[in-house]
Amino acid sequence: MPSYKAPLREYRFLLNNVLELERYANLPGFADAPLDLIDQVLEEGAKFCEEVLAPLNAVGDSHGCVRADDGSVKTPPGFKQAYDQLVEAGWPSLTSDPAYGGQGLPHIVGLAWNEMVASANMAFGMYPGLSHGAYEAIHQHGSDAQKQTYLPKLVTGEWTGTMNLTEPHCGTDLGLLRTKAIPQADGSYRITGQKIFISAGEHDLAPNIIHLVIARIEGAPAGTKGISLFIVPKFILDADGNPGARNGVVCGKIEEKMGIHGNSTCVLNYDDATGYLVGQENKGLAAMFVMMNVARLGVGLQGLSQSEVAYQNGVQYAKDRLQGRSITGAKNADGPADPIIVHPDIRRMLMDAKAFNEGARAFAFWTALYGDLLHASPDEKVREKAGDYMGLMTPVLKSYLTDKGYANATNCQQIFGGHGYIEEQGMSQFVRDARITMIYEGANGIQALDLVGRKLGANGGRAIFAFFNEIDDFIHAHEEDAELKDFVVALTGAKAQLQEGTMWLMQNGMTNFDNAGAASHDFLNLFGITALTYMWALQAKAAFAAKQGEGASDPYYDTKIATGRYFLARMTPDAAAHLAKLKSGADPVMALSAEDF
Amino acid sequence: MPSYKAPLREYRFLLNNVLELERYANLPGFADAPLDLIDQVLEEGAKFCEEVLAPLNAVGDSHGCVRADDGSVKTPPGFKQAYDQLVEAGWPSLTSDPAYGGQGLPHIVGLAWNEMVASANMAFGMYPGLSHGAYEAIHQHGSDAQKQTYLPKLVTGEWTGTMNLTEPHCGTDLGLLRTKAIPQADGSYRITGQKIFISAGEHDLAPNIIHLVIARIEGAPAGTKGISLFIVPKFILDADGNPGARNGVVCGKIEEKMGIHGNSTCVLNYDDATGYLVGQENKGLAAMFVMMNVARLGVGLQGLSQSEVAYQNGVQYAKDRLQGRSITGAKNADGPADPIIVHPDIRRMLMDAKAFNEGARAFAFWTALYGDLLHASPDEKVREKAGDYMGLMTPVLKSYLTDKGYANATNCQQIFGGHGYIEEQGMSQFVRDARITMIYEGANGIQALDLVGRKLGANGGRAIFAFFNEIDDFIHAHEEDAELKDFVVALTGAKAQLQEGTMWLMQNGMTNFDNAGAASHDFLNLFGITALTYMWALQAKAAFAAKQGEGASDPYYDTKIATGRYFLARMTPDAAAHLAKLKSGADPVMALSAEDF
Repeated sequence: MPSYKAPLREYRFLLNNVLELERYANLPGFADAPLDLIDQVLEEGAKFCEEVLAPLNAVGDSHGCVRADDGSVKTPPGFKQAYDQLVEAGWPSLTSDPAYGGQGLPHIVGLAWNEMVASANMAFGMYPGLSHGAYEAIHQHGSDAQKQTYLPKLVTGEWTGTMNLTEPHCGTDLGLLRTKAIPQADGSYRITGQKIFISAGEHDLAPNIIHLVIARIEGAPAGTKGISLFIVPKFILDADGNPGARNGVVCGKIEEKMGIHGNSTCVLNYDDATGYLVGQENKGLAAMFVMMNVARLGVGLQGLSQSEVAYQNGVQYAKDRLQGRSITGAKNADGPADPIIVHPDIRRMLMDAKAFNEGARAFAFWTALYGDLLHASPDEKVREKAGDYMGLMTPVLKSYLTDKGYANATNCQQIFGGHGYIEEQGMSQFVRDARITMIYEGANGIQALDLVGRKLGANGGRAIFAFFNEIDDFIHAHEEDAELKDFVVALTGAKAQLQEGTMWLMQNGMTNFDNAGAASHDFLNLFGITALTYMWALQAKAAFAAKQGEGASDPYYDTKIATGRYFLARMTPDAAAHLAKLKSGADPVMALSAEDF
Repeated sequence: MPSYKAPLREYRFLLNNVLELERYANLPGFADAPLDLIDQVLEEGAKFCEEVLAPLNAVGDSHGCVRADDGSVKTPPGFKQAYDQLVEAGWPSLTSDPAYGGQGLPHIVGLAWNEMVASANMAFGMYPGLSHGAYEAIHQHGSDAQKQTYLPKLVTGEWTGTMNLTEPHCGTDLGLLRTKAIPQADGSYRITGQKIFISAGEHDLAPNIIHLVIARIEGAPAGTKGISLFIVPKFILDADGNPGARNGVVCGKIEEKMGIHGNSTCVLNYDDATGYLVGQENKGLAAMFVMMNVARLGVGLQGLSQSEVAYQNGVQYAKDRLQGRSITGAKNADGPADPIIVHPDIRRMLMDAKAFNEGARAFAFWTALYGDLLHASPDEKVREKAGDYMGLMTPVLKSYLTDKGYANATNCQQIFGGHGYIEEQGMSQFVRDARITMIYEGANGIQALDLVGRKLGANGGRAIFAFFNEIDDFIHAHEEDAELKDFVVALTGAKAQLQEGTMWLMQNGMTNFDNAGAASHDFLNLFGITALTYMWALQAKAAFAAKQGEGASDPYYDTKIATGRYFLARMTPDAAAHLAKLKSGADPVMALSAEDF
């Protein structure tokens, strides 16, 4: 039976030592969230995740969700009780707008909470996760009346929400969508069509589900310019705002998936369902992308979350399992064998995961802080940079963290040998659950294309040049620093390679778009490695500083620095391989005709 | 519903153009197997795999094996009929010794057959696969009487076999095993203990199962020096050699696994079961390794097989699925969208798999040919080199082909987007089935340790220096060849890096064994990349030669060369990253104490 312990010390180190959150105490949201309050919140949250959600993870996997003939769906045993506790404790409202009952804490606090939930029980976490996406879309694009009607219940979690994009013939290419919306005399619309892969699409956790649905209003232009966004509640609200008549949206099927069995992935059939337009006609895609961007950060975090929980269980097994002897001499001479953590190749897998997890978490928090600054900073320049960074980093976070999260979950499963392949041990679930994160909310290949095709060149490359400048500033500020030397050297090398890749793309991607497409995956990975190398430099700096002060006798900081050095030695070197591949261009990739495959 | 088409053209190219099998027509086995006969055999085999086994693959996954309360096990619907057809058609006996009813074909033919079976239905293929391992162990170490008694039925497949090594507390470290054997007056032994993870351990396919079991004879030395090998038939044979009394071995449980559901992975409880010693007392481990080495090549091939079948289905989906437009302009302007095979990043994933599959297959066949020469060559020098190569290449084939096979299966699943995550599509099964290949028959980390700790230094490094010399000879012979220039350049670079890694290991691995352990994974991968780069050079040479002759107008050879160039551009560059990592040594890997994790 796998277990989970929230990495509270890591959060504290990041918020306190690395990001120095106290610098932002003058900003709204932050003002009401001093570090000791955040600490308390996260400690309480950790308890909930460890004690309530984690024990239900395997239950969710083995039971899955069950659809009855009437289209109703039963979630796994214990999910409903846990969800009630979640709502009662107020967790869904953590970072939501106080105007609608939210607690208004910085998003960076919500990030830590979300990671803990996803590590403890990813399938469960998707129910409140999708509600938050629906909240964001209505909050940003809904009318005042819609906000008053739906937000308070979404904020508390009393109702849940969903995102309805995909149709059988249309996933990435939303321009192909066919779901129809017919205007009614009362200003509402009748929605008809079929949506697939709708996470949390139907369940027994809440008395109402607020579906956010994209559809094409009769007569709208073809393609993505004719897409509108609608609210379609499962139960239409009565005059008092309570769930009333059942709406024409029914779960036709639950998909059998590789993982996240605890979440109901539904085919939803809309048959003259009543819907309410959100924002303007034919501007639905932009509104939907509000949800998508929130979701993409969340998905990147899910990748990290599975890597983290798989790592924790890998460590435990490696300490417990006695098998073989250390090649440098017995370390447990009185026992029948040594614990397998003595073996360097077991260490390699654990260190890969640990160095990634801590680097990736720093990257996610560092980015999320810009998300907060984007909303909270009074300084226009800061807001501009924050917006640029959010745009640039989101596809990297989504894709790099999920690819590596899956790889690390696989490696930690490997530590268990044959036992890792047995479902009972739980390691298989981490791998199977992690697998979806590379696919949904925009498959990782789409993220890479978004990065090179849209984000990189936006505003003349303003975002990435700001990132380069920031790294250069760090390098110049610390080039005489003996303690940080290895970090500065590695960062200098990685950044130079990322810059070379960027220049190559700018020179070759415009003359032949296939060069950009063929390079996109390796460019994104090169970016991810550079970003994490930078994060390790920031963390090492903070750790060295702490050692000068309150942390002089705390082994935590030495461990932190050693873990960073591992990243430099064992992960940064991949940057060169990615650069070489991307510079080989489109020709080798596109040489064959479709028939040659 | 996924499909499978055996890569017959690839086999023909390898056997005919690359390995030039006709050169060996003077050797026993080969003499009776001219290329056109091999062609016919493989064509028939392909039909069987495509039409009988492949349609049962998903059935096996969804039904799994079911154990009844009496310990009997039912295989998935259709498996028994397919197995009967397999036996009737004589497939199990393909490469077995004619003295016991085998057809005596070269092992290289058996290799192609095994790949096809594993692609079509890996879980099914394990039943005859394990029988062949049992056949090999008895053939090489059994007494004449044991051979006469058991081999004919194992050769035909009328009975099946198993390998019983693992116990709950002992996997890699077989020295810990506890299963006991007590000598009886009649020369037999009473075996008592528990074995776990026994593939094909109990089933309804055959009237008898011949378990090969390692156990410790009462009073034997501790550790691996006290291990003996026993034959334990499920039914003890009567005086006529037919299955008689039920023996004391019972399936206590079937494991619920991540994949290969169609194979019954059993807990086998031995309770005073009658067993017969194979070979000498306390020499069981060596005899078991006979099976292990055969099995390891087979497992490497399974990794390739899942990459191949996932690739084929990825190609089909990429050609069929219409989504988005090519970034260089519509390629299917009359349709609603272009097929996704137009997108460079989809190509990248397909080409990764294609270039790997064809390189890995060449590597497996090239190695297997040495396996044949080891037995068949009259030249002692050839046999020595063949033995050296088999030893050196086996861990690389097992580990590199399975790691990459899993990665490619994952990538081809990725091509399906959300649909790939739905079990119905079958792509998840390829990934889940591929996953076990990295674990069983010696986890990949153990293979890497075997490579650097045992194989590399054996006989003063004779095997790897022979490999270096062979590559150097190729380079010198072709350095003026304009057509092969790219291949020669890439091979020169990869080989230089492998040599540098080898030298580093020789200098640093002996002074600190942890350096060897920490480097092993990256060294093995560096080896795999270099071997495949060499295989691509050989294939390119054969393709250019064919273009001069009978293949002048055949696009196959241009496709082959372009695929090779992709490997050079996109896969060979990883060599440098592996070299950099391994040269960083043990320090970053071992820096933390166990408590720091």
